[in-house]
Amino acid sequence: MGNCCAYLGPQKNTNVRISLPAVCFVWQIAMIVLFGVFIRYDEESDTHWVEHRRRKNITSDIENDFYFRYPSFQDVHVMIFVGFGFLMTYLKRYSFSGVGFNFLIASFGLQWALLMQGWFHSLDPATGKVSIGIESLINADFCCAGSLIAYGALLGKVSPVQLLVVTLFGVTLFAVEEYIILDLLHCRDAGGSMVIHCFGGYYGLAISWVLYRPNLHQSKQLIGSVYHSDMFAMIGTLFLWMFWPSFNSAITDHGDGQHRTAINTYLALASCVLTTVAISSISQKKGKLDMVHIQNATLAGGVAMGTAAEFMIMPYGALIVGFCCGIISTFGYLFITPFLEKYLKLQDTCGVHNLHAMPGMLGGFVGAIVAAAASESVYGKEGLTNTFNFVGEFKTRGVGTQGGFQAAGTCVSIAFGLIGGAIVGFILKFPIWGDPADDNCYDDEVYWEVPEDEESIPPVLEYNNHMMHKHQDIAESNFSVEQS
Amino acid sequence: MGNCCAYLGPQKNTNVRISLPAVCFVWQIAMIVLFGVFIRYDEESDTHWVEHRRRKNITSDIENDFYFRYPSFQDVHVMIFVGFGFLMTYLKRYSFSGVGFNFLIASFGLQWALLMQGWFHSLDPATGKVSIGIESLINADFCCAGSLIAYGALLGKVSPVQLLVVTLFGVTLFAVEEYIILDLLHCRDAGGSMVIHCFGGYYGLAISWVLYRPNLHQSKQLIGSVYHSDMFAMIGTLFLWMFWPSFNSAITDHGDGQHRTAINTYLALASCVLTTVAISSISQKKGKLDMVHIQNATLAGGVAMGTAAEFMIMPYGALIVGFCCGIISTFGYLFITPFLEKYLKLQDTCGVHNLHAMPGMLGGFVGAIVAAAASESVYGKEGLTNTFNFVGEFKTRGVGTQGGFQAAGTCVSIAFGLIGGAIVGFILKFPIWGDPADDNCYDDEVYWEVPEDEESIPPVLEYNNHMMHKHQDIAESNFSVEQS
Amino acid sequence: MGNCCAYLGPQKNTNVRISLPAVCFVWQIAMIVLFGVFIRYDEESDTHWVEHRRRKNITSDIENDFYFRYPSFQDVHVMIFVGFGFLMTYLKRYSFSGVGFNFLIASFGLQWALLMQGWFHSLDPATGKVSIGIESLINADFCCAGSLIAYGALLGKVSPVQLLVVTLFGVTLFAVEEYIILDLLHCRDAGGSMVIHCFGGYYGLAISWVLYRPNLHQSKQLIGSVYHSDMFAMIGTLFLWMFWPSFNSAITDHGDGQHRTAINTYLALASCVLTTVAISSISQKKGKLDMVHIQNATLAGGVAMGTAAEFMIMPYGALIVGFCCGIISTFGYLFITPFLEKYLKLQDTCGVHNLHAMPGMLGGFVGAIVAAAASESVYGKEGLTNTFNFVGEFKTRGVGTQGGFQAAGTCVSIAFGLIGGAIVGFILKFPIWGDPADDNCYDDEVYWEVPEDEESIPPVLEYNNHMMHKHQDIAESNFSVEQS
Repeated sequence: MGNCCAYLGPQKNTNVRISLPAVCFVWQIAMIVLFGVFIRYDEESDTHWVEHRRRKNITSDIENDFYFRYPSFQDVHVMIFVGFGFLMTYLKRYSFSGVGFNFLIASFGLQWALLMQGWFHSLDPATGKVSIGIESLINADFCCAGSLIAYGALLGKVSPVQLLVVTLFGVTLFAVEEYIILDLLHCRDAGGSMVIHCFGGYYGLAISWVLYRPNLHQSKQLIGSVYHSDMFAMIGTLFLWMFWPSFNSAITDHGDGQHRTAINTYLALASCVLTTVAISSISQKKGKLDMVHIQNATLAGGVAMGTAAEFMIMPYGALIVGFCCGIISTFGYLFITPFLEKYLKLQDTCGVHNLHAMPGMLGGFVGAIVAAAASESVYGKEGLTNTFNFVGEFKTRGVGTQGGFQAAGTCVSIAFGLIGGAIVGFILKFPIWGDPADDNCYDDEVYWEVPEDEESIPPVLEYNNHMMHKHQDIAESNFSVEQS
Repeated sequence: MGNCCAYLGPQKNTNVRISLPAVCFVWQIAMIVLFGVFIRYDEESDTHWVEHRRRKNITSDIENDFYFRYPSFQDVHVMIFVGFGFLMTYLKRYSFSGVGFNFLIASFGLQWALLMQGWFHSLDPATGKVSIGIESLINADFCCAGSLIAYGALLGKVSPVQLLVVTLFGVTLFAVEEYIILDLLHCRDAGGSMVIHCFGGYYGLAISWVLYRPNLHQSKQLIGSVYHSDMFAMIGTLFLWMFWPSFNSAITDHGDGQHRTAINTYLALASCVLTTVAISSISQKKGKLDMVHIQNATLAGGVAMGTAAEFMIMPYGALIVGFCCGIISTFGYLFITPFLEKYLKLQDTCGVHNLHAMPGMLGGFVGAIVAAAASESVYGKEGLTNTFNFVGEFKTRGVGTQGGFQAAGTCVSIAFGLIGGAIVGFILKFPIWGDPADDNCYDDEVYWEVPEDEESIPPVLEYNNHMMHKHQDIAESNFSVEQS
Repeated sequence: MGNCCAYLGPQKNTNVRISLPAVCFVWQIAMIVLFGVFIRYDEESDTHWVEHRRRKNITSDIENDFYFRYPSFQDVHVMIFVGFGFLMTYLKRYSFSGVGFNFLIASFGLQWALLMQGWFHSLDPATGKVSIGIESLINADFCCAGSLIAYGALLGKVSPVQLLVVTLFGVTLFAVEEYIILDLLHCRDAGGSMVIHCFGGYYGLAISWVLYRPNLHQSKQLIGSVYHSDMFAMIGTLFLWMFWPSFNSAITDHGDGQHRTAINTYLALASCVLTTVAISSISQKKGKLDMVHIQNATLAGGVAMGTAAEFMIMPYGALIVGFCCGIISTFGYLFITPFLEKYLKLQDTCGVHNLHAMPGMLGGFVGAIVAAAASESVYGKEGLTNTFNFVGEFKTRGVGTQGGFQAAGTCVSIAFGLIGGAIVGFILKFPIWGDPADDNCYDDEVYWEVPEDEESIPPVLEYNNHMMHKHQDIAESNFSVEQS
């Protein structure tokens, strides 16, 4: 199957035969060298665990952090690769790229994330080594999520080489802003409303804004979905939705921390589905639902609970957050995305502004409010200290101050996203990255060998096709349809 | 893409633009208020956990119930949303509704279930509050399953508003029958053969019987599957099949209880696949397999082990249950479903009678027999007490009596399903719910914005289509096919 | 929808109406009888657990092996049924068989595996019984994997009855070679590079070599994929890829063993994706990626870490293994598979040589090298003993010797695969198994009721089709296309 541009000749060189393999090889070799120099197993994954266990008086192997976090890690892993991947398969002829490039950049990103986050958070000054364990793997997956969110804004308009650049800088920026927000400002953000969603969303939007394509309408015939591509996207939606409680609780405190976070996220997501359906239905003349809303806005409740889910927001509080986010996010798809495109020249393919940037920002501020409203009477003395980790130099910080810092953290993540994204956007404007021409966007043909689709032409038709040659002079053009 | 009825004008008003948003908003706001009044975290998910732990002499956070049950919870969650959801995508033009309405009603149902089950099972009379934890979340998912099963019988014939009504009453009835069966009759039914499958199946069948449509044949062109919709349904089947051991074991006793239940369910399901294949093949003239059987009857073994899996049914006993259920369920699809439709005026879209009602009932009676046959020599003295929870007022109950009560419980679940379903069915007959006309059933177009499907018309054809205009006078009608 | 062979008449009898049900029934009844005689619950899944716990001074139910292994078991279960199943759905008209027969043979294979592995590994000589628990279930799933890999080489060319025979012998051979490699040679192979992948790959290749079909090109129109069948296959790929860390760590040592294995596998897989993409792109004139490579070669890193992942291979070592395997496996798809078909008369449908046999063999030798290079300074004294299980009669074995035995184990697995496969291949040549004719391969029509595919013909076209009859004399042949 060809594509119309093959006849016109593409205006841009989208051949990535040199650049893509070169980048992959160079970066993978760099990873191997850096891992050789820096990365080692931590004490829970090293064969010395048995000695460590004895030293620490740990009674059973089951107290290895692996058993606290591995089930959540696997859920997060599914969200990164199947969730994000399949959510981006909804375009009719861009499903290979949606799931395939997601696979590529997450695989690269998680390695770079282990290094960057290791250097910032667990570099042992004595040995110069970074120790990794199951929590590092979760954090690496989280770190990739920021770049995958950015991919959502860029979907269909960039080359795989550009995406690898987006990821390299995205992971780097993520590690820095995360260090500032979590370590310097001492914010709590276990599920990453701020550090993941808010940052990732604005990062992608800023890149997309710089890469604005005035003639993108030339690809408009490919920008919709077809029936089955919407079904594939629902696989992504549902795995994200189901496993979001694991996402938010994956690195919260052992015990009640993980338990409470999962409950709150579960509730916010359920509530969000109902208001999404309500707004989607009310916005259409005949009350019909729009798959774009169901696939995306239903998830906004999970995004917005990323910060506050580990706090005592109370079950009804979680429902309220989900309630509002379903409304806001669906309104975003209905009004804000078209507005941004028309007036701000911002093309946001998957609507990450409605699903990540805005709910993430909201989640940051919800977290600030819930933190500021915390009290010993609700949390208990120890509970308050544990939940906000008021130890060491932060022993005397009050909840009001904590609330202020949470809000400040949200602003930091927005700033990093916007400024970082703008810079990366300009880097991506160099004409060396193999990005597609305007009339070539949203088309797998550019970067993939796409099978000739004979789906609706079962074997018996081969014979008919043959027969049809005899009628070729009469119905010539029609026959070319069958052959394509 | 249009649909033939658009030309004839639908006989019914299927516009849900007012009713669907209204119901979603009202119910979600009601949930928020009721959660505010009643629902709190339990002691394992509250920040006071650290004090609770000390008080109870619990040595490690890993003994928080979260770590016993969260992996199973996530598997159950996948079954509810992806399992049930995708299983109902097999119809050629009803996949959006299959997975989408499943998503909607489960999201509503689980909130209502937390309240209803909380009131019946864990209302603290002193504080008037209900405490929820991970086990509550599992139970809420279970409770939804009853209504989702009912949806299977109604698939394609009801509106989303009707489904929300089905769920509201379904969850309510579930909570009552569960209270009677588990608390008053003191039955054991961890995997819900009785309370979930038997009840849910008969509930859906009774509704469907009341809503009988004599002219449903007008939609018969949409009642089959297409190749890829059958593949989507297999995603549902497999996730249900794989995670059924988690479903049955999710709330069984810590330790050997969860362990044994998982093993028994795993074996029953494996055995069920072989007999389903055998009967499916033998029933067709050329020995070809039928996807309907593979998608559904292979699961009957899991349904039927819902009660007995936690007992000492022995591995070969589990295989025998699966063996019989594969046969019975496949026979059901071959003979009973057509019989019910023809003679009892019962239209059962997904065949829930064969997959849930009948195997659930069987599972109830298998449980009764295995309970009655229990002995101290097999279970051990403590084992017998633990397994059947013969404590408190039930300390002196014998296994024979227990078997009798198990059988009685099965009958209670059938009665609740049939009577409750009949009443709900009559409520749904009011002409205010936006249900589709007979010639509009099984069609996503009624409630969804469906993309124009150009799947088999790749970009190059746009050009060809253009060229074809020149031949239009020759091959006019053909061109209209390409444009549709 | 017909199929061209329907007109020519199939040369072979593919009616399995007697043989398939007969084999299913006979084998399932045999399983029930043998389970009745041999299989019992182990002490952790029996109701006597509470006494066992007290006897062994186990402080909490959470130390039941169920909680160490059940999450990994469920991931492995998903890999077997969804991973392998959907990976084999990539062919345009063989998706039902890909996922359906995978379902059938795994369900049979796991029962037979519980018996075979039980007899070899946990038969209690005193009672003559085999005790099963969660680890047995994982091992049974592993054992099936060998036969499912073999199915990959045979995909599209054999009947379901033949596949059941392949599985019966495959599981039997597996149990014997596993006993030799793990018990007699005392190799370590937790993730099964040798016992699963190397054996399974060569087993399938040998069968396929014996069953060589010189006229297979008669089915060549069905051997490719279509757009959406490639997307279904990606579901399989991603679930395999994501859960491979669970596969390799499922039965490794509690604590650091499982933890380290998961980390190493995660890293090898990430690295493998980048080199696969690189080689896939560089091999094509325009740098386009090939879905076959992305679907398969990205997994080779997980295969090759099956043995060494539990050793202290170090994070950078894991990256190097993945790096090399991505390259080798993709080269295999590009050059070795065509070479084998042309010169060795070996038709390997899914390329299991590149995904399992070769990386599995490599993994075996990597394991041998890493074992031989082990030292007390890296592992610690206890760590070394625990990792290689140098206890009992193997107390004095050195790491060099262990390395030699690991290499020997790899050779044993190859030998079992090749010789066993050749014998089974000859058994399958008997003309009684209902295999398809050469021009009938890769076609679901032979063994399945396939729905008439009207996917691209929405309801409104029914009307148009009718209109088109009037033009039939002009555009006759074209119309037959629409009707098919």
